[in-house]
Amino acid sequence: MLSFYPGPSKVYPQTLGFIQEAYEQGIVSINHRSARFERLLKETLENLHQKWDIPSEYTIYFISSATEAWEIVAESLIEQKSMHLYNGAFGKKWSHYVAQIIPQAQSKEFALNESLVECAESITPQQKSSIDTLCLVQSETSNGTGQVINRKDLGFSDDCLIAVDATSSMGGIQLPWSEADVWLASCQKCMGIPAGLGVLICSPKALARAEKLQHKGHYNSILLMEQNRKLFQTHYTPNVLGIYLLNRLSQTLPSIQEIQQSTLEKMAIWEDFWQHQSQFQFDFLIDKKELRLPTVLALQGEASEVHRILRLAEQNHVDLGKGYGVWKENTFRIANFPSHTLEDIHSLIQIIQA
Amino acid sequence: MLSFYPGPSKVYPQTLGFIQEAYEQGIVSINHRSARFERLLKETLENLHQKWDIPSEYTIYFISSATEAWEIVAESLIEQKSMHLYNGAFGKKWSHYVAQIIPQAQSKEFALNESLVECAESITPQQKSSIDTLCLVQSETSNGTGQVINRKDLGFSDDCLIAVDATSSMGGIQLPWSEADVWLASCQKCMGIPAGLGVLICSPKALARAEKLQHKGHYNSILLMEQNRKLFQTHYTPNVLGIYLLNRLSQTLPSIQEIQQSTLEKMAIWEDFWQHQSQFQFDFLIDKKELRLPTVLALQGEASEVHRILRLAEQNHVDLGKGYGVWKENTFRIANFPSHTLEDIHSLIQIIQA
Repeated sequence: MLSFYPGPSKVYPQTLGFIQEAYEQGIVSINHRSARFERLLKETLENLHQKWDIPSEYTIYFISSATEAWEIVAESLIEQKSMHLYNGAFGKKWSHYVAQIIPQAQSKEFALNESLVECAESITPQQKSSIDTLCLVQSETSNGTGQVINRKDLGFSDDCLIAVDATSSMGGIQLPWSEADVWLASCQKCMGIPAGLGVLICSPKALARAEKLQHKGHYNSILLMEQNRKLFQTHYTPNVLGIYLLNRLSQTLPSIQEIQQSTLEKMAIWEDFWQHQSQFQFDFLIDKKELRLPTVLALQGEASEVHRILRLAEQNHVDLGKGYGVWKENTFRIANFPSHTLEDIHSLIQIIQA
Repeated sequence: MLSFYPGPSKVYPQTLGFIQEAYEQGIVSINHRSARFERLLKETLENLHQKWDIPSEYTIYFISSATEAWEIVAESLIEQKSMHLYNGAFGKKWSHYVAQIIPQAQSKEFALNESLVECAESITPQQKSSIDTLCLVQSETSNGTGQVINRKDLGFSDDCLIAVDATSSMGGIQLPWSEADVWLASCQKCMGIPAGLGVLICSPKALARAEKLQHKGHYNSILLMEQNRKLFQTHYTPNVLGIYLLNRLSQTLPSIQEIQQSTLEKMAIWEDFWQHQSQFQFDFLIDKKELRLPTVLALQGEASEVHRILRLAEQNHVDLGKGYGVWKENTFRIANFPSHTLEDIHSLIQIIQA
């Protein structure tokens, strides 16, 4: 079974060898308060900083999932009032969870072919000035939207924290780290390892906010996470094997610039294919090329066409992503993650064209 | 490196083969909303019910860690006032986390050689009647205490929920499920798989409490977890590989009765050894045999003796557990988990006696 599902998805095949190493070396048994774990964590954080080009003053934390990260933002960082801008199911879900914790949380849904900047233009300066945390989605897995994150163009105050969900893009494209204060993601997408680990990245401004608020009411308070990170430990027993896999991948994979280039080249193959093939009636759900996420393709067509392609894939032991939420019936999705090779793509194209 | 650390600890060696299977069969890539995952989860829950003798009306949930479970109890189940009875560092930590969420949370520390029943006797009936959730520790990993959990003998009201931390015992001994409403544990102890998964088990009375309170403010609200479990799904992308390992182990390991018998036999070997050996000056930290946890031994002696045995183990590539918290300097700990074979124990004994 070859999985193009947009996460969990195909994992890097070499991760099995890394797991064997972890068994041989006893990594699967190490205590997360030991010097050996501390060395592993320190090295993994350093590798990720380097390979993903994360500014040295930004801090990285391992958590359980991006869903958990949504809640951590609400519990540790939002002061009074957050604003969520979204156009898809996962942005909406984040806003829903936060609203239960932050009574004044606001949200604004925008259209599929609108950019974040266009959405932000419709918010008055008065409204903007009252928002202390802006929650954005860079990669909306439900509909294949990819947004440019640009702090200045959004027009919120300098004190406003910007938190970005990059669940389906982190590790697959270059992210403009300095344009936001919090970046969150899960490992079963572009990181290409088995599910069960999340990554949270914070700017010094985000940590300063956490310090100011002093919210320590939860075991995964950013303050407690940072206290542990300084010792190269974690705030609870983490998924050590997942951390080891990220460590080994970060040693062996190319730089994020090269990975991004490959992601864009593969996306170009897909765009060309869907434009020229005649077997199915599908268009990209997102018309504007610049608003398409290069790591998750969402294609729209008649429900019968969607069923036909999903059935065809299934018959050929390929897993495609079904449509999600309101796009359930009339779209399907294809993950274009770094673990997906040109050969994988050509296999799927051959199946479709057969 | 052979690990006797009381978690993370030695994992079952056969889990590597199961991971290879999970790769070959594409389990590492499956979507957690797919029919294939639903079958895997359904089967795993059924196997655990059967192998661990869990009453059919109790429900099982997979979460990230026992630490997370502590918080879930506070967020979903405690009505007004909880009481924590503890004699060690982890019970104290649980009480600390809960106190930040539940303003009226109470706690009572008891002596090392006291039982839960003796501790409960010192609480007045008036006090008891005001408590809606009693939080107990069956297996206190920091000092090797194991408690009998017996609902009636504690003398709290019938409406009072009893939540039990069995982090270092679940999967290693028979637990009296009906004597409590919530059982929580982590997988890196007696379950013998790599860290990164927790288990939460609830009685119908616990679910009724969750229904009554209707606390849905967190993504891991028990109500949302139960809603997903009914569909054989999970409330967020879980550690699928960990679930698969529990599935395969539950198919191949003996019943919990047999595992418990083996645990007790191995504990008897250790008790006999520490009583008769003359190389080191150690006594069990817990004098009373009936209050010793059979899955984690805590041995007490001079700090110099503790350093000597830890150094000896290290020289022989064996990982022992250091002392924890207030027992840091004058104790060390040995895990006696189901993954530890008689051969492992004899290796360690030989090292100590050499």
